[in-house]
Amino acid sequence: MININFVLFPGLTQLDLTGPYEVLVRMPGAVIRFVAKDMTPVVSDRGLILNPTTTIDNARPCDLLVVPGGPGTDATLTDPAWISFVQEQAKTAKYIFGVCTGSLLLGAAGLLIGKRATCHWQARNFLAHFGAIVDHSRMVVDGNIFTAGGVTSGIDMALKVVATLASEAVAKQIQLQIEYDPAPPFVGGTPHTSDSATVEACMLASRARILSREQSVIRAAQQLTGTGTSP
Amino acid sequence: MININFVLFPGLTQLDLTGPYEVLVRMPGAVIRFVAKDMTPVVSDRGLILNPTTTIDNARPCDLLVVPGGPGTDATLTDPAWISFVQEQAKTAKYIFGVCTGSLLLGAAGLLIGKRATCHWQARNFLAHFGAIVDHSRMVVDGNIFTAGGVTSGIDMALKVVATLASEAVAKQIQLQIEYDPAPPFVGGTPHTSDSATVEACMLASRARILSREQSVIRAAQQLTGTGTSP
Repeated sequence: MININFVLFPGLTQLDLTGPYEVLVRMPGAVIRFVAKDMTPVVSDRGLILNPTTTIDNARPCDLLVVPGGPGTDATLTDPAWISFVQEQAKTAKYIFGVCTGSLLLGAAGLLIGKRATCHWQARNFLAHFGAIVDHSRMVVDGNIFTAGGVTSGIDMALKVVATLASEAVAKQIQLQIEYDPAPPFVGGTPHTSDSATVEACMLASRARILSREQSVIRAAQQLTGTGTSP
Repeated sequence: MININFVLFPGLTQLDLTGPYEVLVRMPGAVIRFVAKDMTPVVSDRGLILNPTTTIDNARPCDLLVVPGGPGTDATLTDPAWISFVQEQAKTAKYIFGVCTGSLLLGAAGLLIGKRATCHWQARNFLAHFGAIVDHSRMVVDGNIFTAGGVTSGIDMALKVVATLASEAVAKQIQLQIEYDPAPPFVGGTPHTSDSATVEACMLASRARILSREQSVIRAAQQLTGTGTSP
C-alpha cells in the first residue's frame, strides 16, 4: 500500500491536484486521501468543488505528500495549521511533491533550505525567500523533494514520481493509458517559448496578484526565520 | 457569455473533464455547468467525487457541449436519457467536444455519421460502428465537432477550442498561465511511440473491459440504426 496525502485548501488550482491525481491513483497499491482543514467541500480558484476525505487533525502519515498550488496558496503560507501539518508529515513521508506554487508552502514550512526547487514561472523567484536554490527547470528533484513548475508540469512530474515509487515500467503504462504524448496546438507555455505579446499579457493580468503574493511570501519568510511576528 | 455544459456521469475518467475544464474556464465569459442525471455527487472511475451543478432535465442550451469519457461511458451509450440529452443539446450548441471515449456517446447519439473522429486509442475503431470515419490523430475537427484522443489529449484540444471560440491570443495566454510546454519524462503515450512491452501490458490489463465495451457499442449501434430492441 502506498499512502498518498494531497493537501487541499480553498482557492487551489484544481489541475495542480487532478493532473497528478490521475497519474498517481493508477499506481498499484496507491491509496489517496485529500486532507483539508475540515470536511467542508473546498472550492478551487475557478469554482470546481473538491471534497476532503480527511482533515489535518486526523490525517495519517503518508509515503508521499503532494502539495498543489494556486492563488489560495498565499493564505496557507502564514497559517500555523498548514505549516505544522506539512512539517509533521514531512518527518515521515518518503517523498514530498510540490506542484506549481505549492512549492511555496514547502518553502514556508522550512523544507527547501539549501535545496534546489522550482515553482510556477511567475512565483519561482519567491522560493529564494525560503532559502531555496531557485532552479528554472520544469522538474527538479533534490533528495526526496520533487518540485514541478506551473500547473500542467505536475502531470510530467507525477510520472517521474511513479517511476521512483513503483517502477519505470509502471509509469510508462500509465503514460500510455492516459495517452500522454502531448501535442500543444501552439508553441509556448513558458516565458521563453511563448511570444512576447503573450508573456506581457499574462504578466499584466496577474500583476496585482503577484504583488499581493510577494507580501505573503515576505511575511511567511519572516515567520520561518523567526524575525516576524507570530499570529 | 459562453455557456459550456460538461456531461457528468459515474465512472468517468476525471482528467477527461478536469483537464479541459482548467483551460476552458479561463476563457473570458466562460460559464461552466456540470450536467448529471440528478444532483447526486458523481464518483469517477478511480474514486474522485465531482458535484453536478444541474441536471439533464434542467440544463439550458449551451454554446459548447463537452463529453468526457471513461469506463462509465459504456452505460451511457444505451441510456435513452443521455442519448436524447446529447441529441437535444447538439441541435443548438455551436460546438461539440468529445474527449477520450466520450466520442462514443457522440457516436451513439448519431452525431458522427459520415464525420471524421478520434477517441482513446483502445476504443478508436469502435467509432466505425456509429458510422464515423475513424481518424487516428490526437485531435480531429470535422465541422463543429471536435474530438480528442485519450485523457490528456483533452488539454491540447481544449486550447484549440478556445482559439476557435475566443481567439488564438487567448488560447496562448491560457497555455502560458498553465505552463503547458509539456515534457513527459519518457518516450511514449501512444501505441506507436510506447515500447511493445508497455503496449502489451496495457492491452492485457484492459482486455476484459474492451470486450465488455464492444458489447455496449454493438447494442448502442443497433439502437441507433433501429435494428436493436429499444429498452
